[in-house]
Amino acid sequence: MKKLLFLIMLCVSMHSYSQDAYNLWLQYHPIQNETLSKEYTAILNTVELRSTTPTSAVIKNELNIAVPAMLSINPNFATSSPSLLISKVADLSEAESEQLSGTQEIGSEGFYIKPIQVNKKKFLLITATTDKGLLYGTYYLLNQMQQNNSLKSIDVLENPQLQKRLLNHWDNLDRTVERGYAGFSIWDWHLLPEVIKKEYIDYARANASIGINGTVLNNVNASAEILEPFYLEKVKALADAFRPYGIQVYLTARFSAPIEIGGLETADPLNKEVRNWWNQKVSEIYTQIPDFGGFLVKANSEGQPGPNNYGRSHVDGANMLAEALQPHNGIVMWRAFVYSDEKPDDRAKQAYTEFVPFDGTFKDNVLVQVKNGAIDFQPREPFHPLFGAMPNSSLMIEFQITQEYLGGISHLTFLPKLFEETLQEDTFSQGAGSTVAKVIDGSLSSKKLTGIAGVSNIGTAHNWTGHPFAQANWYGYGRLAWNPNLKAENIAKEWLKMTFTSNPKFVEPMTRILLNSREAAVDYRTPLGLHHIMAAGHHQGPGPWVDYLGRADWNSVYYHKADKNGIGFDRTKTGSNALEQYAQELQERYNDPKTTPENYLLWFHHLPWDYTMNNGNTLWYNLAQHYQNGVEAVENMSTTWQQMKPYVGTDIFTETEMLLKLQLKEAQWWRDACLLYFQEFSQLEMPAFIPKAPHTLEYYKNFRNRYAPGINPSWD
Amino acid sequence: MKKLLFLIMLCVSMHSYSQDAYNLWLQYHPIQNETLSKEYTAILNTVELRSTTPTSAVIKNELNIAVPAMLSINPNFATSSPSLLISKVADLSEAESEQLSGTQEIGSEGFYIKPIQVNKKKFLLITATTDKGLLYGTYYLLNQMQQNNSLKSIDVLENPQLQKRLLNHWDNLDRTVERGYAGFSIWDWHLLPEVIKKEYIDYARANASIGINGTVLNNVNASAEILEPFYLEKVKALADAFRPYGIQVYLTARFSAPIEIGGLETADPLNKEVRNWWNQKVSEIYTQIPDFGGFLVKANSEGQPGPNNYGRSHVDGANMLAEALQPHNGIVMWRAFVYSDEKPDDRAKQAYTEFVPFDGTFKDNVLVQVKNGAIDFQPREPFHPLFGAMPNSSLMIEFQITQEYLGGISHLTFLPKLFEETLQEDTFSQGAGSTVAKVIDGSLSSKKLTGIAGVSNIGTAHNWTGHPFAQANWYGYGRLAWNPNLKAENIAKEWLKMTFTSNPKFVEPMTRILLNSREAAVDYRTPLGLHHIMAAGHHQGPGPWVDYLGRADWNSVYYHKADKNGIGFDRTKTGSNALEQYAQELQERYNDPKTTPENYLLWFHHLPWDYTMNNGNTLWYNLAQHYQNGVEAVENMSTTWQQMKPYVGTDIFTETEMLLKLQLKEAQWWRDACLLYFQEFSQLEMPAFIPKAPHTLEYYKNFRNRYAPGINPSWD
Repeated sequence: MKKLLFLIMLCVSMHSYSQDAYNLWLQYHPIQNETLSKEYTAILNTVELRSTTPTSAVIKNELNIAVPAMLSINPNFATSSPSLLISKVADLSEAESEQLSGTQEIGSEGFYIKPIQVNKKKFLLITATTDKGLLYGTYYLLNQMQQNNSLKSIDVLENPQLQKRLLNHWDNLDRTVERGYAGFSIWDWHLLPEVIKKEYIDYARANASIGINGTVLNNVNASAEILEPFYLEKVKALADAFRPYGIQVYLTARFSAPIEIGGLETADPLNKEVRNWWNQKVSEIYTQIPDFGGFLVKANSEGQPGPNNYGRSHVDGANMLAEALQPHNGIVMWRAFVYSDEKPDDRAKQAYTEFVPFDGTFKDNVLVQVKNGAIDFQPREPFHPLFGAMPNSSLMIEFQITQEYLGGISHLTFLPKLFEETLQEDTFSQGAGSTVAKVIDGSLSSKKLTGIAGVSNIGTAHNWTGHPFAQANWYGYGRLAWNPNLKAENIAKEWLKMTFTSNPKFVEPMTRILLNSREAAVDYRTPLGLHHIMAAGHHQGPGPWVDYLGRADWNSVYYHKADKNGIGFDRTKTGSNALEQYAQELQERYNDPKTTPENYLLWFHHLPWDYTMNNGNTLWYNLAQHYQNGVEAVENMSTTWQQMKPYVGTDIFTETEMLLKLQLKEAQWWRDACLLYFQEFSQLEMPAFIPKAPHTLEYYKNFRNRYAPGINPSWD
Repeated sequence: MKKLLFLIMLCVSMHSYSQDAYNLWLQYHPIQNETLSKEYTAILNTVELRSTTPTSAVIKNELNIAVPAMLSINPNFATSSPSLLISKVADLSEAESEQLSGTQEIGSEGFYIKPIQVNKKKFLLITATTDKGLLYGTYYLLNQMQQNNSLKSIDVLENPQLQKRLLNHWDNLDRTVERGYAGFSIWDWHLLPEVIKKEYIDYARANASIGINGTVLNNVNASAEILEPFYLEKVKALADAFRPYGIQVYLTARFSAPIEIGGLETADPLNKEVRNWWNQKVSEIYTQIPDFGGFLVKANSEGQPGPNNYGRSHVDGANMLAEALQPHNGIVMWRAFVYSDEKPDDRAKQAYTEFVPFDGTFKDNVLVQVKNGAIDFQPREPFHPLFGAMPNSSLMIEFQITQEYLGGISHLTFLPKLFEETLQEDTFSQGAGSTVAKVIDGSLSSKKLTGIAGVSNIGTAHNWTGHPFAQANWYGYGRLAWNPNLKAENIAKEWLKMTFTSNPKFVEPMTRILLNSREAAVDYRTPLGLHHIMAAGHHQGPGPWVDYLGRADWNSVYYHKADKNGIGFDRTKTGSNALEQYAQELQERYNDPKTTPENYLLWFHHLPWDYTMNNGNTLWYNLAQHYQNGVEAVENMSTTWQQMKPYVGTDIFTETEMLLKLQLKEAQWWRDACLLYFQEFSQLEMPAFIPKAPHTLEYYKNFRNRYAPGINPSWD
């Protein structure tokens, strides 16, 4: 008996204190609370799964993983007298359906969970109109249990608010990942199609658990080869593996593919041969993958080929592909991340200038994919002016989950705070309340196709994301894709509880850490509206002095415009007037520095170093204060983390402790390099609270990090 | 109680059937056999560890991992009345030492394990002269337990037979791994020195468990930058992490470093400034890493810079570095893998021609590192003629663990069979019995520095090696580094038992599979002495037609020399006479095709397609037979594997099943492509047992695998 007890303790302790980060937020920790454990057990002990599709096999598999782990029982799969019934609406008996009201509200991916009573027997019901909805409902239930929420009065009907909820993998065929900080691409092409790795299945589980329903497998800077039979056979194997999890596969299509793999002389979208080539290629794909999602396209941007090469427009290009895909229910996601080779206008204005004239001319199965801000995934940017400016087109938002500008592999930064901020920004495009979320969910558009994309932070790292806390960003992105109006604070709590523990002594301080981490990231890099002043190439460290790159708008100096007179980018009428691309209410608010939110001050204004801000201190002083705040925030993270030791596994405690040390070192590096550099212009005293930098400005300027992750050294 | 039992069953079942491949051969499965379990428990229950060094902390940690897992008890670490005493000889009491004889035989890395009795108390003793020896002794004991061997009459004294037992990582600073099939480099440079990953510690444990005592961190095609302070700080962090495990760190030194990072005009090894620069650089390294191992150098080989660039010899170069390292007890490993840019002599002769004249002129702390064969890690090569030809130099052997020519990521191939074959080959350099093993262990040399290197197959793959069975090659290399005369069969059994189960129903058939796999690999690629006929660049598939590369001896046609008159490379007097580089006995044996072992037939002879071999069939027929044998061997592997399902975890069963399917496809690819190609020359009928190839020779010739792992597409 003693031996038995000991073995159990071991197993339990192994489970609690050396958990495998590979399992992400699906840790399914044993339920410690006895009351809840009894409550859940009463529900999960006998499950009737009234379906025998591949997706219902997935549901069964997930319950067989989760329930023993959480409740120490094996669910009994029965055909009657269940404690939990999982059934599509169409398969409910009359007596069962009678208990429900509102099933007509359940969309094709939604679910409805509620306790019902039939013939004096009470049980919990998960119902939906499709198996996919049942899968999402099951994950919802498990999510509630993982968070230790009581199911007693559960009565929930949820539908996702966006249709296409995608990950974008910037994965290359050689398995390097552009801006990837988590190892290699998870797609092991050489071993496909024969070898379906366990990781593909667990990837699908993780994504299904947060409602992600599509994935673009290859980099926006694409290789045409992925459209060749050699690769399509492998893509099909992945699509087959993902299908039961409700995940469709998409590909980035290189616009010049008709030339590169088709042997044609042109890729002109109005050319008959080219159009035929795409029609045939698309048909070929759909013979192998009947539910192929469609194409993502980056065209005429940063060297990628596109319709402009032939004097054709984005609409010509997008619609050609849309026409080829439409008979198969496929879609085109056409990226709006363009900036002209010729016109030297403010980068922030270029996409709007190019795309707004096309409003209303894209085919119905086209989504215009717009980055959250007009520059490029900065720690903070105002929302992209295209949101709200194309009411007769389907716009989708593109967020970056991988931390290209937010600390790559080494920084704890909770991005749902950034996502939430953008989604809740009011565009005023149709009066007050015209949030970005409303723009993308179709409320303010005449079009009904909706979507969202997140540039994946996933790789071959055992914990999937490199930094262990970056998992929270994948999780949070999925939750916001399902419901763009969720609060970042609630997402943080969900993730912490599911991944670690529900103990409030852990959840409360860690929620504060997560929520504060994004502002810290802004503060020690680009406070007060500064943007795009990172080191060239790898982006991991500071580079406000960068002025030597091929285009003016690749250089840091273009963005901060620091001189003896001040700092900041004048985007008002007296400057680039990017402001005019926003609604009148915002123009009025941001036109005057005094009414501009300080978060955006230097985004819209060039102000003197001694400009007096709201707190009575100068711009220079406050700039330094923000940098220092950021550094101190990281110190606080470390201090708080020390107290979290009892609540987490040893491995992750130690790893995070070490990463926070490195993050502090890098936050200090940003502060020191940027302030020394800006001081050359301000010619003002460094405030007393700024410690003396350990190195000179020359040292920072000369520092090369040739092999920093995520880049090609030839870019440096 | 029921719940408890169930939880235990779960834990046990989780442990037995879904084991984590990350744990390599240190799975520490619970001991099922009750008798053994009692026997081990009697020994392991009370441990006196009479030492408090970092290495003894490692010993304690390993026991705290292994003992609970295997025996469900926590070892009690006591200061008296032990059941197991782990103590250096110097710390033994008189009464204890009296029990032993032969402690003077224990070398600096050896150990002695034996039961002793003091004051009527019996206990097991592990003793050694150093803590490192105690560590190796502890791993030996655990190894015996993992193999379910009785410890009742254990009485073993072991010393490693080679001093420097190294891994060589061909890892680049951008974390790609040349010829790596297991993901990225495990060295996460960006996170060092702050973040010491758990993987580094488990790497050290795995290596210590097989007696590996050194590791070269960076690629032989080196970047000089690793010698800069920015990287040395990170190298030091790794050295500090490895030190308690008895592992020294080494670096590949780029010969032109004085120019590239030193700012000098030359790297001439006889130049005073250059010598000073190296002296200072070496001193700088030793200030940070007092037990730094030394340098590995690839010079004047495949474009790497070296002394020849300055009209100096290999000896000049090696001795310069040796002189700088000698005061610090460091060594130089100077690679003999050279082939002249000018002289077009048989590649197999070049290293011998260049190095033999230098015999006896290298400094004492120089090892000449020689590949196992004279070409380049082929599936089969005769031993390198340098072995035995330089009796006044220290030669070390270099094996390739990573499967560059043996199927990379997708082929189950047990390499200790190859290692054993070479090590037991008789060079006849000092009469019969002058095996390669005796050459490298110093028995036949006037020098006493000995060593061995294995090109690592380790990467960021969760299971470390990509293909799960490739772990056996890392394990087997380590065992042979410790004792070059071990039998591959015994190594196979050890590894199977430790990694999976001791059940003979598994071990017996799987041992046969492992042992047969190398011959299968030879048969379906390069039978009968063929070599170097793989596809250009990636080497993963066949390419006997390759004739277009920059140097003649990079082309496949150079090596098989197929023409209408026959196939094979005449290395006798009538050909390149590479044979004269071998001892007289071998010259006589290999001179005549009739006495040449068929394994080497086409290595030494060019023979007609209708040449009659020992079995009465023609060369052409037997060639086809061997290819077919290889393919059928893989089919048999698959069939046998199906029966192994009850004995292994589900995940690894399925993964291996899928990999064997892929291996079969690739074996068939090799067979079909090679036979179709050679048939163009033989003009003979394809034997009836060869199935019709699914594709034409043109198809195989045109097949491009641009992104196969381990390569740079620009090489193709």
